[in-house]
This record gives sequence, structure tokens and C-alpha cells, in this order.
Amino acid sequence: MAGLKIAIIGGGSSYTPEIIEGFIVRKDELPVKEIHLVDIKEGQEKLNIVGSLAKRMVEKAGLDININLTLDRREALKDADFVVTQFRVGGLDARAKDERFPLKYNVLGQETTGPGGFAKGLRTIPVMLDICKDMEELCKDAWLINFTNPSGLVTEAVRKYTDIKCLGLCNVPIHMKMDIASMLDADSQDIFVEFTGLNHLVWGRKVYLKGEDVTSQVIDKLLDGASLSMKNITDLKWNAEFLRALNMIPCPYHRYFYMTDKLLEEEKEAAREGGQGTRAEVVKGVEEKLFELYKDVNLKDKPKELEKRGGAYYSDAAVSLISAIYNDKKEIHTVNTVNNGTIKELPNNSVIETNCLIDRRGATPLNIDKLPAEVLGLLQSVKSYEVNAVEAAVKGDKSKAILALASHPLVPSAATAVEIVNELIEINKSYLPQFK
Amino acid sequence: MAGLKIAIIGGGSSYTPEIIEGFIVRKDELPVKEIHLVDIKEGQEKLNIVGSLAKRMVEKAGLDININLTLDRREALKDADFVVTQFRVGGLDARAKDERFPLKYNVLGQETTGPGGFAKGLRTIPVMLDICKDMEELCKDAWLINFTNPSGLVTEAVRKYTDIKCLGLCNVPIHMKMDIASMLDADSQDIFVEFTGLNHLVWGRKVYLKGEDVTSQVIDKLLDGASLSMKNITDLKWNAEFLRALNMIPCPYHRYFYMTDKLLEEEKEAAREGGQGTRAEVVKGVEEKLFELYKDVNLKDKPKELEKRGGAYYSDAAVSLISAIYNDKKEIHTVNTVNNGTIKELPNNSVIETNCLIDRRGATPLNIDKLPAEVLGLLQSVKSYEVNAVEAAVKGDKSKAILALASHPLVPSAATAVEIVNELIEINKSYLPQFK
Amino acid sequence: MAGLKIAIIGGGSSYTPEIIEGFIVRKDELPVKEIHLVDIKEGQEKLNIVGSLAKRMVEKAGLDININLTLDRREALKDADFVVTQFRVGGLDARAKDERFPLKYNVLGQETTGPGGFAKGLRTIPVMLDICKDMEELCKDAWLINFTNPSGLVTEAVRKYTDIKCLGLCNVPIHMKMDIASMLDADSQDIFVEFTGLNHLVWGRKVYLKGEDVTSQVIDKLLDGASLSMKNITDLKWNAEFLRALNMIPCPYHRYFYMTDKLLEEEKEAAREGGQGTRAEVVKGVEEKLFELYKDVNLKDKPKELEKRGGAYYSDAAVSLISAIYNDKKEIHTVNTVNNGTIKELPNNSVIETNCLIDRRGATPLNIDKLPAEVLGLLQSVKSYEVNAVEAAVKGDKSKAILALASHPLVPSAATAVEIVNELIEINKSYLPQFK
Amino acid sequence: MAGLKIAIIGGGSSYTPEIIEGFIVRKDELPVKEIHLVDIKEGQEKLNIVGSLAKRMVEKAGLDININLTLDRREALKDADFVVTQFRVGGLDARAKDERFPLKYNVLGQETTGPGGFAKGLRTIPVMLDICKDMEELCKDAWLINFTNPSGLVTEAVRKYTDIKCLGLCNVPIHMKMDIASMLDADSQDIFVEFTGLNHLVWGRKVYLKGEDVTSQVIDKLLDGASLSMKNITDLKWNAEFLRALNMIPCPYHRYFYMTDKLLEEEKEAAREGGQGTRAEVVKGVEEKLFELYKDVNLKDKPKELEKRGGAYYSDAAVSLISAIYNDKKEIHTVNTVNNGTIKELPNNSVIETNCLIDRRGATPLNIDKLPAEVLGLLQSVKSYEVNAVEAAVKGDKSKAILALASHPLVPSAATAVEIVNELIEINKSYLPQFK
Repeated sequence: MAGLKIAIIGGGSSYTPEIIEGFIVRKDELPVKEIHLVDIKEGQEKLNIVGSLAKRMVEKAGLDININLTLDRREALKDADFVVTQFRVGGLDARAKDERFPLKYNVLGQETTGPGGFAKGLRTIPVMLDICKDMEELCKDAWLINFTNPSGLVTEAVRKYTDIKCLGLCNVPIHMKMDIASMLDADSQDIFVEFTGLNHLVWGRKVYLKGEDVTSQVIDKLLDGASLSMKNITDLKWNAEFLRALNMIPCPYHRYFYMTDKLLEEEKEAAREGGQGTRAEVVKGVEEKLFELYKDVNLKDKPKELEKRGGAYYSDAAVSLISAIYNDKKEIHTVNTVNNGTIKELPNNSVIETNCLIDRRGATPLNIDKLPAEVLGLLQSVKSYEVNAVEAAVKGDKSKAILALASHPLVPSAATAVEIVNELIEINKSYLPQFK
Repeated sequence: MAGLKIAIIGGGSSYTPEIIEGFIVRKDELPVKEIHLVDIKEGQEKLNIVGSLAKRMVEKAGLDININLTLDRREALKDADFVVTQFRVGGLDARAKDERFPLKYNVLGQETTGPGGFAKGLRTIPVMLDICKDMEELCKDAWLINFTNPSGLVTEAVRKYTDIKCLGLCNVPIHMKMDIASMLDADSQDIFVEFTGLNHLVWGRKVYLKGEDVTSQVIDKLLDGASLSMKNITDLKWNAEFLRALNMIPCPYHRYFYMTDKLLEEEKEAAREGGQGTRAEVVKGVEEKLFELYKDVNLKDKPKELEKRGGAYYSDAAVSLISAIYNDKKEIHTVNTVNNGTIKELPNNSVIETNCLIDRRGATPLNIDKLPAEVLGLLQSVKSYEVNAVEAAVKGDKSKAILALASHPLVPSAATAVEIVNELIEINKSYLPQFK
Repeated sequence: MAGLKIAIIGGGSSYTPEIIEGFIVRKDELPVKEIHLVDIKEGQEKLNIVGSLAKRMVEKAGLDININLTLDRREALKDADFVVTQFRVGGLDARAKDERFPLKYNVLGQETTGPGGFAKGLRTIPVMLDICKDMEELCKDAWLINFTNPSGLVTEAVRKYTDIKCLGLCNVPIHMKMDIASMLDADSQDIFVEFTGLNHLVWGRKVYLKGEDVTSQVIDKLLDGASLSMKNITDLKWNAEFLRALNMIPCPYHRYFYMTDKLLEEEKEAAREGGQGTRAEVVKGVEEKLFELYKDVNLKDKPKELEKRGGAYYSDAAVSLISAIYNDKKEIHTVNTVNNGTIKELPNNSVIETNCLIDRRGATPLNIDKLPAEVLGLLQSVKSYEVNAVEAAVKGDKSKAILALASHPLVPSAATAVEIVNELIEINKSYLPQFK
Repeated sequence: MAGLKIAIIGGGSSYTPEIIEGFIVRKDELPVKEIHLVDIKEGQEKLNIVGSLAKRMVEKAGLDININLTLDRREALKDADFVVTQFRVGGLDARAKDERFPLKYNVLGQETTGPGGFAKGLRTIPVMLDICKDMEELCKDAWLINFTNPSGLVTEAVRKYTDIKCLGLCNVPIHMKMDIASMLDADSQDIFVEFTGLNHLVWGRKVYLKGEDVTSQVIDKLLDGASLSMKNITDLKWNAEFLRALNMIPCPYHRYFYMTDKLLEEEKEAAREGGQGTRAEVVKGVEEKLFELYKDVNLKDKPKELEKRGGAYYSDAAVSLISAIYNDKKEIHTVNTVNNGTIKELPNNSVIETNCLIDRRGATPLNIDKLPAEVLGLLQSVKSYEVNAVEAAVKGDKSKAILALASHPLVPSAATAVEIVNELIEINKSYLPQFK
């Protein structure tokens, strides 16, 4: 592993400058030789735009990294050391549908959970298993760093159905940590958050500042107006009595479960004719503007505007993880990996999001105390959904699809689950060969 | 234990003739000497009516059983062999409130689960622990057979906070078994149902007829119009695709979770001005008529009309359980008892509803296979609610009350949980000394 | 399953009259049509002798059961309903070696545990898996009732490596129950023993007489001279301080672990020149006499002398188990079946000996409380040995064989384990094709 | 915690210069203000000698650390930040007895396991709980770093019966790591050993050099003559077939279990008249010479001869652990702490020796894969012994003492366990008030 080859699947994504910057910043610890940006034919134009920017960034930094733009995935994977996946099957159009169609059933439409996230998972998992099949042939010892959402679900499919070394990554935990540091006016190095749960359902069980438990201080700040949110989730305030009773730090996505009613109302308002549109529709506009910026041949850095897009800390999360593996660092990162008894109530072979020691061997979860009753129900419900969702996605098993959605906390009845499954298979049929 | 003394707390209940009949039917195997019907002052009149009927029933059967009507609980408990609890704190008026007030939050009002069942649990548990305290003093080796709802929750409180030998009982499993026998045109003796779950959340995992697996036949019957319901739950039909995917027999109460939307609509319709009223309000009328019947000095048997009340098989469940204990029968009954690893994902010290070997030692659960993902989420959610509900009820801890309801699958948001908790404590304040 | 076909593998065994008697006694509940006694060529003579006796016994009882003597196992298995295995690979000669060769390493030689039992397991398991392969083809729904020792180990191999429905059986638990009933002067029907552990390592955790805990009474009796032993194990008395501290009823075979030093001395004494010989050598004489008796054409019943052989209650254990399955009886029997979480510290897929509900579905273990520390070490040690022993036997993996014996509590060092493994493979090479 | 106060109980130990040197070496990261060396009256002379050396060492290093010699434990504990325990109840004389008396039962006499270690545990635990009681009063937030043997057993008693924050420490893991680094000619920083097990029963499951698995290389080296031993354990070579089958790195103390027969022979030879004496007797001589050296007022450094004593890396283990806690370092150390599900087959509340993340919050174990069968038996046996040993030590319960030893793999029979318990209580009676 000297002179690293990196393959980025979904290389035409607007996020690519983030990760390129990450490699530039860590140039002294990561001897990257080649970065292959892979995309599909439909993404050729975007790939060219963002790829050219990437080349300018590397050049400006004075680095000898070969940036290769390609539609040939196998060429990119051949002998790769790290593979990063950040692709989106069906693009923002598919996402817009995911966000819109559940609303008619009075169900939240969301990119990564509920019927929308489920549809996305069904579209994504077969492609991901295909990539892994290629990897088993072309770079079986490479690490797969998965950013593609729903990240936990996709990672669970990879870990259950392939032998590829894979970690799932999300910028939610690092975002929370940074926001907490900022609300406490502290250096983020001095903050330790006991993260545990699932992807987009991760709790900060306790927060420590230089080893001192400051959880209730953080809760006070949150209730006092401090924000802990993501660009793509409305910053609805927490109910004070509930949050103090919970005494943990929910992640921004927890709002979908703890504030279901309000967010549903809001989504319906946005989606109605004349409303601002779903998140995907908003993002489309942001993306178009971003790509306009990227086209500027004088732009040689990641533009500030990218932050609006929601990917803050993405490079930090991904490249620092790659560096921790490559350099055998024995650092603590929050990743999606196999449970193996860490959360005692969840299956051993399920994927969870939790604090891990990262070194060349990969991710070793830190032991956690038994979780309190108040989170186990939600946790188990979402995991129950995920277990059947993975089976449905891999095997094209409609019964499992029905059981998956009928178990999902956001779906109000089994009959609705059946209707939604039928509709989502219909809507996405060109992306769901496994259901034919 | 020869010449048994039985104490029935809530003896003035309209159900009492059921259990009296049970003792009469089993007179050859259960040498009952005394039955003490205990009630509170407010129930004196009903106690007199139903107690007189009980006396006439025993007399007609030619048995030498002393029926004692009393308001003195301690006298009844003194040296009792079996204590049966079937009381209702706050009576049907409190139940009517439990069923009505959640509707304004768009939440189901139900006697045994959701906010209504929670309110009932909060009212009941302190009284039950008080009874147990008396038992520890007056009849520490007696068995407590609990019928008081929410039966699982109440039994969990007793098993966690007292040393009394207690089993929780419900007529749902026996009802299901009888209905299944009837739909298969089989002798109920030849039917074996692998029941597992929680009280009012019990699945028939598989059904056997003379040892042959007939689960899918039963599902076909259910989808073909056969009924598996209780008097108090609308017999809404199951979605066929869902039920075949599930491949288990849900209990009638599962409708609250699998058909939440329809049942909520229906409840709202019943509760509106001019509607038929909530179930409690309907029951009130039934009860009044029953007590009119009971007054008839020529009535010397359990009247047929009692079945409408919803208590069918109550005597079978309770008295046959008492007999299995007393006669060391080593029979299989479905009861609420401590999990102890039976359902591996639930806490060891929680109470579950499951098939048990019953003998003098009590209930020993039969081993069951790991449950499939599709039931674990709902199961864990309701248990999460129950664990915090017991803590809230015993300790008067409002934070636990909030966490309990916020975890409940029927409650749509944490903020709503807080509002509901505040209202239910207010409504029930005369019954909730622990929250003062 | 009407007009049952029974196949008995090892039909020429001296025990056969026991099981034939069992079928005769239960003629009203078990409609047996054919019993096939199968043996190998070397056993032809014995098969003829014992088979003729079996025919005379059935004839005397006036039953219409066809007794078929055969060397063709597949013919016997074809469409069988129950298959009983009671064969001994290598016969008593191999057993005599098992009992003798470990002594030179200062290690107990025992038929069912330690190096001797391990050798027997290695010889037996491949034959048993072969039988199961035939069964999968010829009678895949038949029940396999395994009596072949080491019964737990063999059953674990069958359950891990085949789909055949199999229960392992041993007469130790029923023997203990009968002896306890006799020492308490009670009807065995009124005795319930909480058996738990492994085959030949089963503890009676508690003893109940009509539902009353009489464990300490039984311990008093044992310490006061009452016997709880088998014909083949010296009735060494228990240390009183230890037994009272243990407060459980050990099985006779526990002496090998709790009195290792004395039994080793005794075995060495018996095995020295001029001694009485090993147990196998003694049994040979008993067997010869038995077969002399069996030859008598006037003998039409199981002879009393058979009891000396050690197989008392064998027919009770086996035929009553078959009847409980066939008649869907829901009775409690003590059998070897898959753990599935019953003993929480042992692997889910391991076989344990424990109380089970028996019906047409097979054996469902009764839930047991967590075992105390004082038995967990021994239990886990023997199971650790068994897990590797099964792997070694199935795969012919010598490393696993070494690890198996090095984990065995009777083997004093890893180097000795290696030496023993080398010797036992050499001694038994004609029976261990898997190690070639 | 600025200007740290350290209390060392058993300050007169010959090991003290080791730990003093540790504080001197880490002066820049640990702002130590006071070190209190506490001993009992019988140790006054040694305390004076070693205390004076400690003062000279600190002075030579030019540090402003106040070394206080005292017999007043409570004064030393008052407001301490870290308490290190390295005392020996009964001194080397008691240890000599521990090592000698079991031999007559043909049982190994060993300082930290078997009957000898058990006796030491029984003497030590009451004193340790007494120290903790003082700590709860005088310095309840201090960390207790326990070096007193049997370190796992003592730490388990503290964690089960007190609220003191306590980690148990042993130099075996660091010793193994250093020896492995040396046999691989590697920097110890580049070596990672997956340690897991119990104190003095810890396996190196896998060894990594810069992230590469080199386990089998290490095994080759071991079999090729490389040494992995401690001063106090004869360096008997491992059986090659066994070690390759095991495929883990045993700790030096594993020899007591895997080579029981040879070590027993050797101990008997050493203990016979004219032999070299038991280890304690040899150590006495070493100690005397050490104290002669320590008396030399010109000696101002830890003398080389101390290494012979067996305490190599003691300072590294202890002071680097203290620094990792104090400085919130998030480093990996191998310590004795509460299992909490790390080794799934052992009780949650037991203490194990395992790799942990160390920071201000204490020790968080790293997740480990399920252990293979071949180690579970030995592990569970020793833990079974330990669980009852702790109960016996805390409660003076002789039954538990019998069960503890009867479960111990080194004790050949239950009757012998009873005899040994009787003798060891008699021999140690002045130190075992709990058994009166």
C-alpha cells in the first residue's frame, strides 16, 4: 500500500471537491498516487465539470496526484486500495419521488428512512453488491468506505452478503460533535460523545468535555436555542420536558421519529402546489448553481457554497478514516460496522453506528452499557425494518418488503405498508430488476 | 392446602358468576371451602347482588362452599390459598375517560394499551402493590392470579416489586385457541398454538392440529371470513398480503397496532356527539342489564347474557390454572410470567405472555425459537413502554411517564406524549397519590 | 403413521429384549406393525439369538408384530417411522481398549467420557452420519432415537450435520428419578427432578415430591447411605461437606469428575494383571451368560439377569418417548436435544440433556434459571471438549482432536493430550477412515 | 486534579523504586506533588529503607515531589487522586506456606491461582475492602490502581462490593508484548496483541505487526526457542502440535494449566528437603539482597538487580495507565475491568483482563469476537472458581470456599477441595477474621 490508488464511485457528485480537499489537507500522511472518479454515462457532463475542478485543486496544491475521470468502473477498481461510494441510483429525480409519493398516505417522505429511504435502499443495494462482486475480483483487499445512503442499510447488505471489508460513514456524528464543541465554546478535540444507535438514529448518550460529563449542559444549551441540525432538516426545537427526561442528545434525524406529526405537516406544506418543493427539489437548484460555480476555470478551491449542500465535514469524516486505517492510528471514529454484541439487544450480524477503534484491522467497537428502555423500542423497530429491508433488496422478496415497511415506526398500518410497497415497486421499476 | 380458601378482590364484578361457575364445574378436583368476595364501599350494592347470585349458584350445585361477602380485604386474605384480582380502580367512569381523552390528540383511547391503558396502569399498580403487601403479611405462600388489566403491566410490577407468587392471566389466548378449533372444526384438545409475546400483543406463531402444522390453513380461514375476535374489538379484516407475509396469527388486540388508522377513525366516530359512545359507555349499559338479571332470585346459574360482556372462557382460564397448580398437573397454559430468557431480546426480568408448564412450582416457560425481525420491533417498543410505565407507576416518576408514552407506538410525537401525560395525571389525580 | 415400522440399528444387542418388552407393554398406545432388527455381518449370530427371543416374546404376548432380522440397513430404514440406534462400533473389544489405554497416562479410561469416550465418539459419529444420510433418502420424516454412546456427542453431530429429527436418550435421568422415589418411599409419578446439564453430566438441580422441594432430604439420604448409582459405576460415597455445599443431586457419572483420583486408582487396580479387568471385560462375561440364557427356546420373557447389565429402564425411557411423540402426549421427558438458549452460557446449537415437553413436534426444553457458578466451569469444559470432538470426528481434523482432549477436565496436560490423540488414532485406525 | 497526590499502599515493597522511577520518567505529563508510601508497623524498617531511596531518586531527578513515609493509611488516602495497592497480607512467609502446603495433596502451590492463590485472595480481599471503605470516606473520586495479587480476583471483589473506581493491573500483558516485539526484532509501538481472558490466564489471540497478522510467526518463534516467560515461572517449552492447534499465544501462567503435571513435579522437587525451596523462599533471598543495596546512601537510581525480582515493566504499566487516565489519552491498555458483555460467555459483572480504551472515564473494553471452544472451558472453570472465591472471601462462607476450590481445574477431587479448605483456613486463621 504505498502510492495509494483511490476509486470514487459517483465521482461526478457535487460533493467530490470536499473529498479532494480532504486528500489535499492530509497529503503528508496519505501518499495518494491516483484518484479515479467513476460515474455512469448519464453523469458524464457533471463528471467532466467536477473532475476538472478536482484537477485544478490538486494542481494548485502542488501535488502529484493523477486524477482520472472514467465511466469504466472495473478499470478504476483494479488494484485500488480504497473505494469510496457516493453514488445515487436514479439521481435527484428518484429522490424527489421518494420524498413526494408517501405524503398521500400521510407518511413522511424522507431520503434515508421511511418509504422514501426504503425505495432508495432497494435501488441502491443491488448496485452496491455488484460493485462488491467486482471488488472481490479486482481488489479484494481494498477497503470500501460507503457514503451512499441509506448508509447503515447499504453497509448491512455488504457485510451480510459479501466478504469485502466495508465501513459505512455518515457526517451526522462529526456534525454533532462539532456543533456541541461550538455551543460549549470548546475545542472539538476535547469533546467526546458516546455515540450509539443506527445510522441517522444515533444518540449521543453522554457528552464529555476533557473527561467531565457535560451532558446536561449540552441539553440546556439545546433547549436554550443552540442548534444541532443539518442543512436538510428543519431545526425544530425539542420539547424540554421530554429532552430532560431522555437525558441523551438525539441526532437531527431523530426529529422524524420524535416529531413525526409536525414534520409531516411541514413536508405537506412544502410539497403542495406553490410550496417550496421537497428537499430534493430544493437541492436540485443548489446543485445547478454549484455546478455553474465549478465550471469557472479560475476556481481552484472547494467553494464555500458547497457547505449549504449539507456535506460539511464529509471530507474530515472520510479521509481521516482512510488515514486512520492506512496509518494504523488506533483513533476513535464513529462508523457503521457489524454489531457483534455491542448493542446486546440487536442481532450480532446487524450493522450499527457506534464509536470504534480504527486501525489497519478496521473498526473495533467500544463496549457500551446496556441501553435504557426508552431507546430500545425505537432502535429495535428501525432495525427490524432494516433486517427485512436488506432481505427484500437482495432477494427481491415482496413479502419481506411488506414486513419491512409494516414494522417501520413511520407507517401507520399494515394495509398502508402493502399499498406503499406496491406503489414504490411500480414507481421504481426500472431500478428494481430484483423484483421482476 | 386442603379445604381451599379463595379470595376474590373485586368480587362485586359482573364477571364473578363466571369464576363461581368455574369452581362448581371443577368441584371434584378443587376442594374449595370458602370463597371471599371482597369489594370497596362504593361497590357494596353490586357486591350484594352478585354475591347473592353466587350463593344461589353454589346452593343449586349442592356444594358446601362458604361464600363470604366483605369489605374487609385483610380478613379475606388471611390464610388464603389463592387470591384472584379482578378489580377496576375508578370503575367504568375512569375507563370511559381513558377511552375518550386521547382522541383529541389523534391517539387511540384503549382500555389496556396506549394512553388509556397507561392511565389504568398508573391507577392500578399502587393498589395491587398494597394488596401484595397485605399478602406478604397474611398469606405469603398464596398464589396471586391476576386478571386486572393491563394484566401484563400489573403482573410485571408485582414480580419486580414484591415476593408474591403471581401469574397474570388473560382470556385472549384461550379465546384464540377456541376460535381456531371452531374454524377448523376440530376439538380444542387437539389444537396447540405456539403463543408468544406480551399480554394483548400475543402472536400464535404456529398452530398445530394433532401435531400437524396448520398455520397457513388458519390464515386462509381468517382471510376467508372466519372471525378471531373479542366482543370488545371491531372485527376488522386482515390485509391478505400482509397476513400471508407475516405467517403468524395475530391476536385481536394487534389490530390497534396493525390497523391504527382505521380503528382511530372508528373510535372518533363512536365518541362524537350522537355516536354510540366509547366501549366503556357501551359496557355500562350491558352491565346495568346484567345486574338487573342478577337480582332475580330465581336465577341460579350464570346467565347467557354474560358472554356478551367479553369474559368468555374467563372461568376456564382462571380455575383451570388454579387446578393445574393445586393438583401439580404439569399442563400447558398460556400465562403472563417472568421472561427469564424465553424471548431472548427482552429483559430477563420482564413479564411476557407465553406457553408454560404449570405445576405446584408455578409456571415454567417453554423454550421458543428466536422471533423473526418483523415482530421484534413492535414487541420491543411495547415492552420499552411497559418498563418505564411500571417505574412511573411505582415511583410516581413523571420523567419515566413521559419516556413511557413517548416510546409507545400509538403516540405520534414526544411533545404529544408530554401533553398527554400532563392531562392524564390531572384527570386521574384522585387515583394517583404517587404523583403528588 | 398407522401401523408403525420401527428400525433398530444394533438389533443384535443384549439390550434388545428390553425394548421389545417396552413395545409389548405399550401395545395399546403404539400400533407397531414391524420391528426390524438390523446388525452387521460380525453380529449375525447374536442377532439370530436375540431376534429369536424377540419373536418368542411377541408371540407369547399374542401380538401381531412382524420381527424382521436383517443385515440390510437400507431395507430396514425404508419408510420407517422410528429408528432406534443402539449399536457399538468395534464392539466390546474396542471398548476394552478405550478403558485400558488411557491408564498408562494416569488418565481414567471410561466408555463415554475422557479419552475412551472420545475414541468411541470418533468411531461412532461417521457411522451415525451415514445412517442419517440413508434416512434422508429413505425415511426423511422418521424420528431417530439415539441410545448409542456417547449419546450427547453423537446427537450433537446429528443435529449439527444432518436434517434428521433426532433425540438422544440415556437411562441415567430415569434411573436417578426411580432411585430417588425409592429412597423417599414415594411413587415415582409424584417425583419431579429439575434435570439439567449434559449427557452423563446431568445434575438434579432440585427434587420435588408432589410439588414440595425435598432436595435437601434427598441429599441427607444420599449421605446416609442411600444409593444413586448405576451397575457400571462404583458406588463411592459423596463427601458430605461438598454435597451439602453443592445442594444439587449429581448423576452417578459425576463421580468421574468429582472423585477423579479415587476412581483412577480403582481402575488401575482392576486393570492390573490379576485384577477383575476393565468394565468392558467384566461385561463380556455378563453378555456371554446372557446370550446363553437367550438361546433357551423356553425363554419367552426378558430375563431378570438383564438388569445386571446396566440397562434398567431403557425400555421405559425409549418406548415411552416414542409413545409421547406418536401420541402427541405433551409429557415431560429428559432428553438430549438442541440447547437453543436453555443453558444460557452454552452455544445455542449445542446439545444438552434437559427436561423437555414431548409431543409430535418433538422436544421443547423447559426454561431453567441461570446455573450457579459452581457447575458452569465443569459444564463448559466438557462442552468445549464436545464441540471440538464433534468437529474432529466429522472432519477427521487432528488439530481439533488435540484441542478437544486438551480441554477435557480429565486430561492433565496438553502434551498428554497430544500423546493420547496419537495413540488412539493408531489403536482405532481401522474404524477411523476420516483421519486417513 | 492539579498537583497530584498519590498514595501507595504497601509502600515498603521492594518494587517501590520501580514506580518512583515511573513517576520520574513521566514528570512532564504528570504533575505529582506528593507520594505517600504507606505500610504497616511490621514493615516499618523496609519502609524506611525503600522510602529513603525514593527520596534520593526524586532529589537526584531535581523534582519537587514530597515523599511521605507513614503508617497512617487514612492520612495518606485523604484527598488522594490515585491510590496504588501493592501490599501483601502475611508477607512472604504466608506466601511460602501457600506454595508449600498444597503439594502434599498433589496439587500445585502457586502464589496467584490454585489453593495458594485462593488463600492469598482470602487474606487480601477483606483488607482491600477496608481500604475502599476508607476511600469512600476520604477520597471517593480517586482511582484505585490495584497491583495486589491475585489481581483479577481482588479487583472483582472491589468492583462487586464497593463504588470505588478501580482497575486491576498486571505486568504479564506488557511483558508478553515486549518479549514478542523483541523476538520479532520490532519496535513495541508497532505491535498490537489482542489480549483477552482473565488475569494470569490471558491469551494473545492474535498478534499484529504494523497491522499485519503475525500470529503464526510468533508461534514459530516460540517453538523455535524464543522465550515468553516471567522470572518466576520455569520456561518450559510448549508442545508444538498443541500450540499450532491452539493458534493463540498463551501467557506464561498458562503453563500451570497446560503443563500441570510437569510443573507439579518440579515444585515437589524444589520443595523437598535440600531442594532450592519454593519461589517465595527464593524471593526472600533476592529481597534481602535488594534491601541491602537499597540501604546504600549513594544509590540514587533503581538498581538493575530489581529486574530479577519479576517486576519488569511494572512502572510502565502502572504510571502510563495513571497518565492515560489523568491526561484523557484514549490509549489502549490491557487491564482488569468489568466484563460487561465483552466475553459473552462470562457473567456481565465479572472482572476480565482485556484491551481497553483508557481515558478520564476509565476503561472501556474493546469488542472481541466470540472465543473458540478450546479456551471457553478453562476460562469458565477459572471464572467459576473466582466467583465463588470472591463470595467466600467477602462473606466468610465456607461452603462457597469448598465450591470455589472444587471447581478449580488444578484440584483433583471434591474431597480434596474440602481437605484443602479446612487446612488453609487453619493455617491462615490469624488473617481470616471473616471465617470466625
